[in-house]
Amino acid sequence: MRTSVATVCLSGTLAEKLRAAADAGFDGVEIFEQDLTVSPHSAEQIRQRAADLGLTLDLFQPFRDFEGVKEEQFQANLHRLEAKFHLMNRLGIETILLCSNVGTATINDDALFVDQLRRAGELAEHYDVKIAYEALAWGKFVNDFEHAHDIVTAVDHPRVGTCLDTFHILSRGWVTDAVENIPAEKIFFVQLADAPKLSMDILSWSRHHRVFPGEGDFDLVKFMVHLARTGYDGPISLEIFNDSFRKAEVGRTAIDGLRSLRWLEDQTWHALPEAELPSALDLRPLPEVAEPAGIDFLEISTGRLGETIRILHQLGFRLGGHHRSKQDYQVWTQGDVRIVVCDRGPTGAPTTINAMGFDTPDPEAARERAQLLRARTIDRTREEDEADLKGVYAPDGVELFFSGPSPDGVPEWLVEFGVDKHEAVPGLVTGVDHVNLAQPWQHFDEAVLFYTALMALESDREDEFPSPIGLVRNQVMRSPNDAVRLLLSVAPEDGEQGDFLNAAYPEHIALATDDIVAVARRAKQRGLEFLPVPENYFDDVQARFALDDDFLQTLKDHNLLYDRDAQGEYLHFYTRTLGTLFFEVVERRGGFEGWGETNAPVRLAAQYREVRDAERGIPS
Amino acid sequence: MRTSVATVCLSGTLAEKLRAAADAGFDGVEIFEQDLTVSPHSAEQIRQRAADLGLTLDLFQPFRDFEGVKEEQFQANLHRLEAKFHLMNRLGIETILLCSNVGTATINDDALFVDQLRRAGELAEHYDVKIAYEALAWGKFVNDFEHAHDIVTAVDHPRVGTCLDTFHILSRGWVTDAVENIPAEKIFFVQLADAPKLSMDILSWSRHHRVFPGEGDFDLVKFMVHLARTGYDGPISLEIFNDSFRKAEVGRTAIDGLRSLRWLEDQTWHALPEAELPSALDLRPLPEVAEPAGIDFLEISTGRLGETIRILHQLGFRLGGHHRSKQDYQVWTQGDVRIVVCDRGPTGAPTTINAMGFDTPDPEAARERAQLLRARTIDRTREEDEADLKGVYAPDGVELFFSGPSPDGVPEWLVEFGVDKHEAVPGLVTGVDHVNLAQPWQHFDEAVLFYTALMALESDREDEFPSPIGLVRNQVMRSPNDAVRLLLSVAPEDGEQGDFLNAAYPEHIALATDDIVAVARRAKQRGLEFLPVPENYFDDVQARFALDDDFLQTLKDHNLLYDRDAQGEYLHFYTRTLGTLFFEVVERRGGFEGWGETNAPVRLAAQYREVRDAERGIPS
Repeated sequence: MRTSVATVCLSGTLAEKLRAAADAGFDGVEIFEQDLTVSPHSAEQIRQRAADLGLTLDLFQPFRDFEGVKEEQFQANLHRLEAKFHLMNRLGIETILLCSNVGTATINDDALFVDQLRRAGELAEHYDVKIAYEALAWGKFVNDFEHAHDIVTAVDHPRVGTCLDTFHILSRGWVTDAVENIPAEKIFFVQLADAPKLSMDILSWSRHHRVFPGEGDFDLVKFMVHLARTGYDGPISLEIFNDSFRKAEVGRTAIDGLRSLRWLEDQTWHALPEAELPSALDLRPLPEVAEPAGIDFLEISTGRLGETIRILHQLGFRLGGHHRSKQDYQVWTQGDVRIVVCDRGPTGAPTTINAMGFDTPDPEAARERAQLLRARTIDRTREEDEADLKGVYAPDGVELFFSGPSPDGVPEWLVEFGVDKHEAVPGLVTGVDHVNLAQPWQHFDEAVLFYTALMALESDREDEFPSPIGLVRNQVMRSPNDAVRLLLSVAPEDGEQGDFLNAAYPEHIALATDDIVAVARRAKQRGLEFLPVPENYFDDVQARFALDDDFLQTLKDHNLLYDRDAQGEYLHFYTRTLGTLFFEVVERRGGFEGWGETNAPVRLAAQYREVRDAERGIPS
Repeated sequence: MRTSVATVCLSGTLAEKLRAAADAGFDGVEIFEQDLTVSPHSAEQIRQRAADLGLTLDLFQPFRDFEGVKEEQFQANLHRLEAKFHLMNRLGIETILLCSNVGTATINDDALFVDQLRRAGELAEHYDVKIAYEALAWGKFVNDFEHAHDIVTAVDHPRVGTCLDTFHILSRGWVTDAVENIPAEKIFFVQLADAPKLSMDILSWSRHHRVFPGEGDFDLVKFMVHLARTGYDGPISLEIFNDSFRKAEVGRTAIDGLRSLRWLEDQTWHALPEAELPSALDLRPLPEVAEPAGIDFLEISTGRLGETIRILHQLGFRLGGHHRSKQDYQVWTQGDVRIVVCDRGPTGAPTTINAMGFDTPDPEAARERAQLLRARTIDRTREEDEADLKGVYAPDGVELFFSGPSPDGVPEWLVEFGVDKHEAVPGLVTGVDHVNLAQPWQHFDEAVLFYTALMALESDREDEFPSPIGLVRNQVMRSPNDAVRLLLSVAPEDGEQGDFLNAAYPEHIALATDDIVAVARRAKQRGLEFLPVPENYFDDVQARFALDDDFLQTLKDHNLLYDRDAQGEYLHFYTRTLGTLFFEVVERRGGFEGWGETNAPVRLAAQYREVRDAERGIPS
């Protein structure tokens, strides 16, 4: 599939945008006119730059407010259009995007639109260029892609065709089946955008909230299926107006965009019957990857080794051993939970989740898929006789490893830590309930698409809850088999109240147990510092759930928080934070669906006080 | 007027919120329940803390999903309510806010609502508390304040009244005249919120985008007039859910909030007939302040003195003189434009607009008004015989001075610089067209209210335009007589691309002239470095306006940008930036209404390249 991207999706100068698109692997770009207008480089220089980078210049856009006007105005518009045709010749661009008139049109008459577009087509012939007419969703008289196509049909000029833009089609709720009725030779261009479902005026939605395919709520796969059936063989181009993309690092945005197209191409491949493949779009599938069967290991990196392993011990973990060649690594185990701790020494390095290993049926295919999806490969040094863990970096820098299956359920690499793998330590902690990772807000959608496309995780519930310094947004990603649950959180950005707000939004590992009281009791005996739960909270729990007094006392005694839904109950406690990381222990009773979001504000307030008091030098 | 604020408006812990509300000057607060739930302080401690700070605890809120349920559910709800009554007794709070049911209500029957609320009232009697029933805009069966009042009337219990919340009333477009029909003794509480006009679902609008009175688009003055006529004499409280407030510095938000109430009180005073004043609300007006007659002076602070005064000279300014006691200050004049330059020495201090003086008819009243509006007063050291300039700090730290009128139009303070005030230097530059100040986005609304309330400026057009690293939002504030125009800009925040994005978004001073070509020619002779305008821009101007060749060549020769509307033309050029400040020179022909926003992307792209090249060590 030929890929393209509009320069308006990317930040920086036009030269920087071209470089980023080429580096990400796009085949071509659309030149957004204003990017050229503000550029110090001439049209000829841009043409040469693109050629040097191996990029085709697929479209010049947009040309606005052309048709449906009186003759005098039309002459001025033709003058303007001719200047752009001249510019396109200098750029070597064949096609211009002409949007349906939103502003100056005064005459609602299809015959007039047809006449004026035909005259534009005649002018285009003179300059050897083509016009792709597009119905904007808020076009004054033309806002439906079928209407635009009807006009193009009536124009009946080889230089005039249509441009299909999924935002303009799907934001209006138009049914995409009709795409199949458009002859391929009249589809001059295709622009893709996804968008979250928002209730707002379409213009604002379009200008600020478009996202890459797979990051929103539009059914783009269905659109692509219909498009494939037309026989269209041109580029599939991204045109995304997004406030975050405009200010994000350009190379990263370009890679995110290309990933979205590769993922969509793969989805479209699987949605089409085999007989129709690869279609004129020349679709290629990605290597298939099955959902993970579980979490193989979690790796923590820390400059506070003593405190980290003390907490692990307090939670019931035992030291498995130290890595035989990488002296800084040790593994702690309990049941099937394996936590690798990397000692950064007394460097002040923060305590973070550094890596995650997933039980993956076919690691080689998973890594190949990840590479095609433009994830950066990890190249860890290793000895000859050590396991070759295949991994890639997540967008936020966390390392993801695809661990292969082991016949007895215990991974081979444990041997490198001197662990006799057949001596599994049973424990009260039985697994990892979920892992919570903080994401910068600008890259939240990117992270969701990443885990969807690479790891076959699915977006589940989304929550939002207050902290003392702002709202926290949370997206649950889970494998369909429920073996892996990731919580991606966006902490408040740009605050004025210090560390808690910025890089240090605390991440956490939630451990599962069937007997939280026993885990808590043992932890208390071993001296664990629980995150304190305020008395007011228990008053409120009692008001809401009318618990019996003994049970309430048990909660209080063990700093346990509580929630209940129609399916079951959720009991949990938190440890104090190690700067940026803490642990949670969770007992689910019945089929409780949440993950403690109701109680998150209590936690965040306590953590805020912890950070604030530490800043003021008050011992916590 | 008694003022109150809901703790949910403010960031931090409950204790921090109370402190900020008291410091700002509020009379009382509403306790948002969750703030208490997550607090380590007991109800009794909070009660004591508020008393120590001189704050009344005016409301406990919210209680949700109470009425319209089956009896079994109702018993559970009563249990929950009773627990909260008990808590209110401990807090010493008389009134609870009970919102109309949005979730659990299953029976749409006013008689049932009345019965269940009456039983709640009977329970309230037992605890000596009161219930303020409020129609939420998205209430399942009750979403209209008149409906809520009808139910309260039918309940006919002294412990049950209504709460009026302007967001819930005005977001639905309900007409506020009917407020007058509610007897004062049944209005148990009043909550105010303003909001910008947005097309989105009401719940999201409410939860994220409320703003303080005067910062949005609601007609709150009209509401207050109707409220005054009821005879209501309770507190007027702010309940604002706003994502920015949640993370802003709490003291600043509290002051912004109190300012909004004082401004609203003053507006309401002026909207009511004299015979109805001060009303049961006990309204007080602010000292009146007339719109400014012009800009007396602008003050630049710089660590790059040589470059700054070179540019001033290149633009035609002459050195007036040095201040006789403050050696670091010099004044440059041209016509009626006076620019004071404060030399910070080679300290690396940025070049910024440090102060603005406005021609103000009554400086003493202006400062008194500003103080009542909680602006911080400037206390500049001065000698006995020097002008006593009255001033306050704007929210972003810029100093604003209220200069008194001088009979001959030339200010007295010029004498301190050794300027013979009767020897005004005529010049090609005739005045200040506008001043552009950058604002952090979290405080944009605060700044708009500040200039509205203190300086009698009015919000005019709002624009948004792209830069290479994100969208810039711009709000024009102007005096009705057009003597003063401020442009407040929010540059993209939180970017990943260096300085340009962050503090250093460049501000500027736009000077007016009647002959821009002469100004540009002289500046060129004197060696001014113009911000370069790309050739592509002129191609586009030519395509859009079909200018004659001579005129176009004049634009090119002098780096002039051009715009045109139905009323007139706008010609302008920019200087290169002094780090964070630059100058623009503007010639308006006819009644052109804009300020060059169409060309701003060209400028921003050039400035971006300037900054980027400087970072890379490329001489600009």
